[in-house]
Amino acid sequence: MEILYQIPGDVTAGPLGAPELERRRRILQGWAPDDVRVDVADAPGGPLSIESHAEEFLCVPPMIAALTARPRQPDAVIVGCFGDPGLGALREILDCPIVGPFEAALHMAAQLGARTGVVTILDSVIPVLDHLVRGMGLSLRYAGAMAIDVPVLELRNNLEEVASRASDLALEMVRAKEADVLVLGCMSLSFLGIAEKIARRTGLPVINPAWCALESARALAAQGLVQSRRTYPKPRKAIVMAEERP
Amino acid sequence: MEILYQIPGDVTAGPLGAPELERRRRILQGWAPDDVRVDVADAPGGPLSIESHAEEFLCVPPMIAALTARPRQPDAVIVGCFGDPGLGALREILDCPIVGPFEAALHMAAQLGARTGVVTILDSVIPVLDHLVRGMGLSLRYAGAMAIDVPVLELRNNLEEVASRASDLALEMVRAKEADVLVLGCMSLSFLGIAEKIARRTGLPVINPAWCALESARALAAQGLVQSRRTYPKPRKAIVMAEERP
Amino acid sequence: MEILYQIPGDVTAGPLGAPELERRRRILQGWAPDDVRVDVADAPGGPLSIESHAEEFLCVPPMIAALTARPRQPDAVIVGCFGDPGLGALREILDCPIVGPFEAALHMAAQLGARTGVVTILDSVIPVLDHLVRGMGLSLRYAGAMAIDVPVLELRNNLEEVASRASDLALEMVRAKEADVLVLGCMSLSFLGIAEKIARRTGLPVINPAWCALESARALAAQGLVQSRRTYPKPRKAIVMAEERP
Amino acid sequence: MEILYQIPGDVTAGPLGAPELERRRRILQGWAPDDVRVDVADAPGGPLSIESHAEEFLCVPPMIAALTARPRQPDAVIVGCFGDPGLGALREILDCPIVGPFEAALHMAAQLGARTGVVTILDSVIPVLDHLVRGMGLSLRYAGAMAIDVPVLELRNNLEEVASRASDLALEMVRAKEADVLVLGCMSLSFLGIAEKIARRTGLPVINPAWCALESARALAAQGLVQSRRTYPKPRKAIVMAEERP
Amino acid sequence: MEILYQIPGDVTAGPLGAPELERRRRILQGWAPDDVRVDVADAPGGPLSIESHAEEFLCVPPMIAALTARPRQPDAVIVGCFGDPGLGALREILDCPIVGPFEAALHMAAQLGARTGVVTILDSVIPVLDHLVRGMGLSLRYAGAMAIDVPVLELRNNLEEVASRASDLALEMVRAKEADVLVLGCMSLSFLGIAEKIARRTGLPVINPAWCALESARALAAQGLVQSRRTYPKPRKAIVMAEERP
Amino acid sequence: MEILYQIPGDVTAGPLGAPELERRRRILQGWAPDDVRVDVADAPGGPLSIESHAEEFLCVPPMIAALTARPRQPDAVIVGCFGDPGLGALREILDCPIVGPFEAALHMAAQLGARTGVVTILDSVIPVLDHLVRGMGLSLRYAGAMAIDVPVLELRNNLEEVASRASDLALEMVRAKEADVLVLGCMSLSFLGIAEKIARRTGLPVINPAWCALESARALAAQGLVQSRRTYPKPRKAIVMAEERP
Repeated sequence: MEILYQIPGDVTAGPLGAPELERRRRILQGWAPDDVRVDVADAPGGPLSIESHAEEFLCVPPMIAALTARPRQPDAVIVGCFGDPGLGALREILDCPIVGPFEAALHMAAQLGARTGVVTILDSVIPVLDHLVRGMGLSLRYAGAMAIDVPVLELRNNLEEVASRASDLALEMVRAKEADVLVLGCMSLSFLGIAEKIARRTGLPVINPAWCALESARALAAQGLVQSRRTYPKPRKAIVMAEERP
Repeated sequence: MEILYQIPGDVTAGPLGAPELERRRRILQGWAPDDVRVDVADAPGGPLSIESHAEEFLCVPPMIAALTARPRQPDAVIVGCFGDPGLGALREILDCPIVGPFEAALHMAAQLGARTGVVTILDSVIPVLDHLVRGMGLSLRYAGAMAIDVPVLELRNNLEEVASRASDLALEMVRAKEADVLVLGCMSLSFLGIAEKIARRTGLPVINPAWCALESARALAAQGLVQSRRTYPKPRKAIVMAEERP
Repeated sequence: MEILYQIPGDVTAGPLGAPELERRRRILQGWAPDDVRVDVADAPGGPLSIESHAEEFLCVPPMIAALTARPRQPDAVIVGCFGDPGLGALREILDCPIVGPFEAALHMAAQLGARTGVVTILDSVIPVLDHLVRGMGLSLRYAGAMAIDVPVLELRNNLEEVASRASDLALEMVRAKEADVLVLGCMSLSFLGIAEKIARRTGLPVINPAWCALESARALAAQGLVQSRRTYPKPRKAIVMAEERP
Repeated sequence: MEILYQIPGDVTAGPLGAPELERRRRILQGWAPDDVRVDVADAPGGPLSIESHAEEFLCVPPMIAALTARPRQPDAVIVGCFGDPGLGALREILDCPIVGPFEAALHMAAQLGARTGVVTILDSVIPVLDHLVRGMGLSLRYAGAMAIDVPVLELRNNLEEVASRASDLALEMVRAKEADVLVLGCMSLSFLGIAEKIARRTGLPVINPAWCALESARALAAQGLVQSRRTYPKPRKAIVMAEERP
Repeated sequence: MEILYQIPGDVTAGPLGAPELERRRRILQGWAPDDVRVDVADAPGGPLSIESHAEEFLCVPPMIAALTARPRQPDAVIVGCFGDPGLGALREILDCPIVGPFEAALHMAAQLGARTGVVTILDSVIPVLDHLVRGMGLSLRYAGAMAIDVPVLELRNNLEEVASRASDLALEMVRAKEADVLVLGCMSLSFLGIAEKIARRTGLPVINPAWCALESARALAAQGLVQSRRTYPKPRKAIVMAEERP
Repeated sequence: MEILYQIPGDVTAGPLGAPELERRRRILQGWAPDDVRVDVADAPGGPLSIESHAEEFLCVPPMIAALTARPRQPDAVIVGCFGDPGLGALREILDCPIVGPFEAALHMAAQLGARTGVVTILDSVIPVLDHLVRGMGLSLRYAGAMAIDVPVLELRNNLEEVASRASDLALEMVRAKEADVLVLGCMSLSFLGIAEKIARRTGLPVINPAWCALESARALAAQGLVQSRRTYPKPRKAIVMAEERP
């Protein structure tokens, strides 16, 4: 089974470059069972990073272009961004299941506790997540999100501090918002080995959305389940990007 | 006051061409009070029409490009598509209020009746609207949507039949889903003079989303109200489209 | 177009007297576009002020009497009290759209941010508003209300202090209840030029419910929209007040 | 213990006259346990019957006047109208518990089944009930209402037909709306011995709101429970009706 | 009328022994009106106390065994545990109304104020109550629960301290969670005369769930109301416990 | 990794006997990836089948007894009954993740479509599922359930008819309740190879809850995730069953 972790931004053109794709692939492959081959791709021409609602929209067409250009579709696709950009669009266009890490994490968290809290990086993401939760109809099970406010590119140099701040926020959400399960709220946090640290300090289950999405993608593909064509009908007419017009 | 009706698709490149922009502008201007000047623009490079969730995503970057390329911002922007594509992105980027016709229509309908029903053109839009309603937190006030299933380009040649089918669906929604206010569920329906016909046949208030959005845009701009920067923070870094990269 | 701002209390008989009607009329007229003529009326025999749920009920019959006694109906009516008293009753009886300032403000606020907070004058109003919000089905978008606790008649002598306290409460609601849009929670606050001050201090959009109601009334009347007769059926039999009985 | 069944309309001045008060009193007293004395009063100057939202507002001041004019307060008050008019106002003003038949019936029904359906007399009441249910926050437990459409004054002459139509509607609500408990949706239906007939025909529990309200009033008074002064604060200033003004 | 207060645990085998049954019976009988005879029974073989979700499940079969072994059914049964264990099961099996103290208390509280707060003994109960409230569809009317953290067996020796801590928590829930009605969150608290103390200190109505359940049971039985067989169908086949198998 | 499919009833003592355990084990093992070993156990002394809410409670203590008697805990436990009996109790007592097939199926279905419909065997299960959905806070995503009404023991002899009836009900739920994803609503249906047939006839994704639960259990165990101890605290005192008391 091949699972594609599709990053909607243009990592190759950014400061981390192509090696970051390989780094993430190796980590994901390490989590995967033997019958799964993980591929990681980014979206040429997409934003260098995705830190706003605007960029969540700007990344979708390059991601669609990258996906439809592949010679053959994988068995499942993970949208490699915590805001689940373009989920509905991909579900319409592609024939394999599409997993959004935020959506998958919230549904898994709901099987571990009553109310889920998210620890994220930037304040600006919080209202986006709130909107997603309402759209999912899961507001009664959501405790909200708090941000550690460390720039993405500085995360790796401050692992201990990041874990410590994240744990403090988590405990604050437990106290003030009755959170009892945690989700890491950014894909960058997913590849730092930080979930375990926070779990240990807080005593709460901590979901790593990249790993969770991988498991969800595998679960759907293994069962042969694909999104409903009533909710996500195949577009009647071909999607033609401007640059392809004759 | 200048209100821009920004069509997210590329009407100019489509079958109706530039005259359609002018036709819509004249109708909108006819609805506007004297202190409002309406401008209509489309999005070069956007989809020729927007009939799927996928196209709702594909149209956003061209729409952002068109809007940010304008020499000066209008006093309010209406997103000229009933699915409200890119609302959150535009609210982050621009400094004037952004009106989504579906959102505006649902909030206005809620002041006229208990439960709103939508008459739309294609079945494929229905789950998109459902998702939007949940995201707005208005599910208790929403009766659902039904589609007349007439291709967009054939609408104009069948006005009587369209009005008749739409009225029948509306009455079916009254009976089975307890709808008591109607909203036309496609911007194409908004410029055909059809709302009055349906209102007469059903005895229900019928909201034309283009007109409603115009009034909402005017209302926000007149009061000097702009979206909250806590919900829609200005992007920290400049939005750079791939084609602009050095 | 004539819009009537109908105060449900008996201002003329109260300490401020008839000049207050004219003062409010001038302010409202100043906000209105050229095609709108604003009229302001009060309700003879109504409560001198409306500060409790009880008075919200006591004011309705005098308000209905005042409205039905008018030689001709206006194009839209604003109920000039933030608790929206008698909204459903007026919508049944009259043939023009009826606007409740609280209802209109909440629906407009929902287009500016995710969760609305209300700054009001007296604690006693807070549960009334809560009940209204549940009735509107908008609880997921409501952050709650807080009261500055300054007697209504002392408001005008303490504008700076009122603005300052209101801003502090607003920021407290941002912090503790995740409010991101504000609504002034009393019509008395609407005619003091205070919304702008609070907006400046808090950085949030602040809705003045009188102005918002005026715009909403204008928007409905301009579109020829009237409440649904399924939700608000015309009373089958004439409404006969006791004093009119033969 | 004295429980007052306060009719908000002016039954004495209507076609049924004062004997109807005594008839209802006898029925209520027949349901009451030995320690309860039931009194029935109407509201002089109130509407002759209450069949619209408008009349639900018009009846409140006469009802308040009637209640505050009593030499001493009863141990509990039942508002004798299914739309629960003025509940919040009475709870502010009076010092004893106030029971609304609709509210009481819905909360009791929720302990007998999952979703409650209401069989009422006139279509016009249905949206009023819907609004009440949203205000109570009980929408997930409400299956809706249907009307038999028999004029109130003709009810008594058609008991068999009324029971038969009501049972048919009830079964329709079971089928189409998943109702599994019923509530009679009008106080006129409460004094006709009809609940048992419908229960027998439908096999469902049928709540008579007058009896249910009596039991709820007794239960609250027996426990010494009175409404919260945080939700229903005593009005700060005396409620002065216009006719009492010097 | 006979009302059975069925304790799901095995009090007789525990430290308090059979006299505790008689003590509770006397208190309940003291609250009951003259036409009610209260019986109290426990469940031989049930847990000695019920302090976890696990014990709420373990107690149900012994409770069913105890109830079905009675020579004749009472007119109503109260499940004598605040977590309402086995409510749905008993409603299926028995032919008389079954009252859950938590469910009954929340529905009664909703008629006294807007949001109910629960003061309980142990933290571990809080998520169980949360889950029950969601299941009841009453989340919009629930302010949450807080625990005084005093072991059950030490309650009686510390009445003043218990009342004082409970009052402090109640006021904290008023401040932080907008509670305005209280419910004692454990049946052990119900037989200590503590509700009145807390009501006096907090100025809020305080519902004693044992008394409230008694009144609710009496109200249902007096009206001849029994649970809906659509929601709680009689089991098609006989319930055969393992120990009864041949 | 060892995953235990724990049937809460006493299959061995029933008509199908021990071979049914082995039959199910083989099917489950066939779905599992190589790194998973599936074990199937039943609950000696539990009900022979679980067809009512009552039996869902009666099965929990034998299931707990069976689970705690195992020499060592598996890596995850699936409760092998669609009503998810005892989920909260097992989550408190055991140290590995516990998966409820209904809960897991609904959360997976929510990633495939907007509203989930359940096709089940007996009408009596429908209100139990409704209650579970409210408890999960997922009502906005649930379209309801319908029953084919074929006795469990006759299922295997009528596979074609069962698939045909189930498909008809599914399409009825699509039409009348806007279902767009299906879940088989009984574990007996899960081991008949019927999901694929229904998927083919309806064109909808059909979730087999046994397979889905297996994948969910594997996903949780692989990530080392265990239920939150805030939601499901370990019982403070040992759980002592009556028969173990000295």
